[in-house]
Amino acid sequence: MTKRLLLAATAALALPLPALAQTADQVAKVRDAALQDTVAWDVTEGLTTEIGQRLAATEAEARARAWGVKKLTALGFQNVHIETYRMPVWIRGVETAEVLGPSAQKLTIAALGYSGSTGAQPLEAEVAYFASLADLQAAPAGSLKGKIAFIDHAMVPTQDGSQYGYYGAVRRAGPSIAATKGAAAVLIRSIGTDHHRNPHTGVTTWAKGVSPIAAAALSVPDAEQLVRLVKRGPVQLRLSVTPQFKGEAESGNVIADIPGSDPSAGIIVVGGHLDSWDLGTGAIDDASGVGITTAAALHAAKLGQPRRTIRVVWFGAEEVGGFGGAAYAKAHAKERHVLAMESDFGADRVWKFETNLPEGAKAIGDRLETALYPLGIERGRSKAHGGTDVEPILALGVGTIGLNQDGLRYFDLHHTPDDTLDKIDPAQLRQNVAAWASMLAIAANAPEDIAALPPEKGE
Amino acid sequence: MTKRLLLAATAALALPLPALAQTADQVAKVRDAALQDTVAWDVTEGLTTEIGQRLAATEAEARARAWGVKKLTALGFQNVHIETYRMPVWIRGVETAEVLGPSAQKLTIAALGYSGSTGAQPLEAEVAYFASLADLQAAPAGSLKGKIAFIDHAMVPTQDGSQYGYYGAVRRAGPSIAATKGAAAVLIRSIGTDHHRNPHTGVTTWAKGVSPIAAAALSVPDAEQLVRLVKRGPVQLRLSVTPQFKGEAESGNVIADIPGSDPSAGIIVVGGHLDSWDLGTGAIDDASGVGITTAAALHAAKLGQPRRTIRVVWFGAEEVGGFGGAAYAKAHAKERHVLAMESDFGADRVWKFETNLPEGAKAIGDRLETALYPLGIERGRSKAHGGTDVEPILALGVGTIGLNQDGLRYFDLHHTPDDTLDKIDPAQLRQNVAAWASMLAIAANAPEDIAALPPEKGE
Repeated sequence: MTKRLLLAATAALALPLPALAQTADQVAKVRDAALQDTVAWDVTEGLTTEIGQRLAATEAEARARAWGVKKLTALGFQNVHIETYRMPVWIRGVETAEVLGPSAQKLTIAALGYSGSTGAQPLEAEVAYFASLADLQAAPAGSLKGKIAFIDHAMVPTQDGSQYGYYGAVRRAGPSIAATKGAAAVLIRSIGTDHHRNPHTGVTTWAKGVSPIAAAALSVPDAEQLVRLVKRGPVQLRLSVTPQFKGEAESGNVIADIPGSDPSAGIIVVGGHLDSWDLGTGAIDDASGVGITTAAALHAAKLGQPRRTIRVVWFGAEEVGGFGGAAYAKAHAKERHVLAMESDFGADRVWKFETNLPEGAKAIGDRLETALYPLGIERGRSKAHGGTDVEPILALGVGTIGLNQDGLRYFDLHHTPDDTLDKIDPAQLRQNVAAWASMLAIAANAPEDIAALPPEKGE
Repeated sequence: MTKRLLLAATAALALPLPALAQTADQVAKVRDAALQDTVAWDVTEGLTTEIGQRLAATEAEARARAWGVKKLTALGFQNVHIETYRMPVWIRGVETAEVLGPSAQKLTIAALGYSGSTGAQPLEAEVAYFASLADLQAAPAGSLKGKIAFIDHAMVPTQDGSQYGYYGAVRRAGPSIAATKGAAAVLIRSIGTDHHRNPHTGVTTWAKGVSPIAAAALSVPDAEQLVRLVKRGPVQLRLSVTPQFKGEAESGNVIADIPGSDPSAGIIVVGGHLDSWDLGTGAIDDASGVGITTAAALHAAKLGQPRRTIRVVWFGAEEVGGFGGAAYAKAHAKERHVLAMESDFGADRVWKFETNLPEGAKAIGDRLETALYPLGIERGRSKAHGGTDVEPILALGVGTIGLNQDGLRYFDLHHTPDDTLDKIDPAQLRQNVAAWASMLAIAANAPEDIAALPPEKGE
C-alpha cells in the first residue's frame, strides 16, 4: 500500500496542473475494477442473442433501439431516449451462383449493400477476370459488355487493419467501375482475410448516373476456386442476385447521459453502432463497441459525478452509410462537444492509443499514457481519427482519443455470418473496458479546458 | 554416404529374413522422394476444382469417376476401370430455420443425410431442449409430441478423433429416438469442433419402422445461440427442411492396378473415397485420401515392379453408407487380398501407425517403424482398424496397417461447406504420401507370406 501511494504521489508531481479532480491512483482503481467488468459482456450477449442481426431501418433495428432504452435505463443512465431519422432501405434477396458446363458447381456469394438485381430470370454470362482493381480500371470502355466482372485482390491481415482502406476499394468502387464498362454483374473476392465459406458483405457505391447492377462477394475459398477455374479456360456462370430497394423507413440513435457537474466544461461523446449487417449477429461489429463504451462510462462514474457530461450514443445505421452519426451531429450541433470517440473495431485487446487534442489539453494524453501502460497499451505517434459515427462531430473541431484494437483477426469475421458472440474473448473485452474507463475517468474530470481544435489545413 | 550405407547395413542385420526384395535404404529413398511429391496435390486440386462436390449417385459423382479413369490412366496405372452398383439417392432441398417472436432471427442449418421432410408448409413448433443424447433417451414416450427436439452435446477436438464415435451418436441415432417419442422434427448441434456458421451434415439412421422426420444440424454458433434463447424461455421455431428420396441410381468404384510380379503373393488394396458430401468440395474428405494413396502407389513402384499387386480404389458412395466398399468386397471376394488400407481422415500429418498383421508377417511392422521414424511417426500399441470402405474386405480376415493422421482440426471441417482445397497443407499432404509410399514399398515387396488373420473372437 505504501509503495502504491508513493507511486501515485510521484505521478501526481509530474502532472502539469495540481488541481486534478481525480488522482492517478483513483484512475488506476477505476481501470482495475473495470478489468472485472460484466456489463460489456451482458450488453454484447444480450443484443446479439435477444435481437440477433440488426440491419439498418428494419424492424430488427427498431427492436434493438427499444432493447437499448430498457437496458440503459436499468443501468442508471439519465436522459435515455431515441432520436429518429429517415433513410433509404435496402433488403437482401435470393443470391445464388453456379458454374455451368463440365465443372458445374455452386459458389457461395452474398450481395453487397446497395447491389442491383439480376431480375427474376438468372443471368447467364461469361466471367471476365481482373487480378486487381487497377486491372479493372485499365479495361477498355465497353469491353465488359454482358459479362460478369470478377475482381480479385491480395488483402492480408494487419494489426492496425490498414489494408481495409486500400483493398476495400475493390468493394466500394469496383462494381460501379465495372458497370461503366458494360458489365452485366460483378463478383468480388470478399474483402476478408479468412478461409471460410462465409462471404463478406458491405456497401458498394454507385457513381452518379451509374445504374446499379448485381454485385456480390464470393467467400474467399469460392473466389480462389473461381480463380483456379478461370485459369483452366472460359467460365460461364448462372447468377441470381435479387435484393430490393424499399424506399424510406425510420432508423434512430439511442442516447443516454451521465450528466456532468460543470455544464460549461462540455460533453464527451462515446459509443458504438447499434445496427449490424444482416448475415451475422453483429457481435464484433458492433455490439461489443456498444457494450465497451457503455460499461466504461459506468466505471468512470464510480469516482462520483464527473465534471463533464459523458454521453453514450448507440448509433443507428452505420453500416449502410453512417446515417446515425450524421443525424446526431446535425441534431446536436449547438451543444459544446469537447471529445468524441467510437469503439468500432471488434473486441480484441487495445494495443495502442493516439490522441488529437488541443494545445491546452495535451496533458490528458500524458496522464492516459500512465494509466494505460499496465494494460499493455503503448502510445502511438500518429494523430487519432474517429470512427464513422463520430466523424461528423469531429469535423466541427472536436478532439478525439483513439484506443486502437488489435485487428489481426477482425477481417476474418467482419461483415460475415461468422460475426457472432462466440468470437468475443471475454478477457480482451474487459481489457477494452478498462482502457475506455481509464480514458473517461481522466478526460471527464480533467481540470484543463478542452478547447476546439484549429481547422485542419488542406493537404 | 558411408555413414548412410552403414546404417542401412545395420538395419538389414536386424531383419528376420535376409532375402528382402528391397533394403531399408531403398525404402528411405522412396520415402524421401515422396516428400517432394506433386501427384497427391494434383489429384486433390483437380478433383475439388474441376468436379467440386461429389454427392453419391449424382451426375457429379459420375463426372468424378470419368475424371478418375482419365487421371489414373495418364498416371500409368493398368487395368483402370469403373465398377458400378445401384443405390438409393437422397438429395438436399430447402433448409431454413427461424426463431419466431420477440427474438425473431434466422438460424443456419443443413439437413442430415436421409432426413425426412417438413413438407411444403413450414413447421412451426416449440423447441424441446436436451443437453445430451442420454437426456433425450430419458424423455418419456410421447413427451415430444409435435415438438422440435434440439439435441446438444459437448464434443471437443482430439488428436485421434476418438470423440466422433461417442458424440456422433447424437447425429446417427438421435433423430430416430426423437421420432419414436413423437417429435415433429429434430435439430442437433453440429457434430463438429469449430465455431463457424457452417453446419456439419452426415447420415442419420432410422430404426426399423420409424418414419423419417426432418432432421438437421445447426452450425455450432447457431446451436449455442439457441441454447442461450432456450435458457431465457420457450422458443418457437419455423422450420422448412425438404430433402427428397429419389429412388435408385448408379454409383461406382474406380479401380487401378500396379500389377505385381508374384500373383500368388496377393493383392494390397489402398484408396480413399471419391464421393463427398454436397456442402463443400470434399478436399479433406476425401480427395486428399484418394490423392495420397494414388501418389504413394506410384512412389512405391519406383523401386521396380512390386512383388504384390498394388491396387488403388477410389471408392464411391462412402458418406451415405459405404456402398462402394461393400460392392468392391462382394465383387472381388475370390481374389487373394493380403492387406487393405484407406486414407480417410484428412491430410494433416501422420503421427502414429498401428498394424494388424498375421504372425508370420509381423516383421513388416518392425521395418515400417524404422522407415517412418524420420517422418516423426511413432508406433502405437493398439490394433489397426480400417476405414469404412475397406472394412468389408478386412472382415474376410485381411490384415491392415493404420497410418493415423492428426485429427485436431479434422472436425472443424468435416462434412461442412468449409471442406475445401485451401484447408490442405501441401507439406503435411506430402508427409502423408511419404508415409504411405514407405508402407507400400515395404509391404508390397515383403518376402514373408502375409497370411489371413485368424477370425476375431467375440468380445
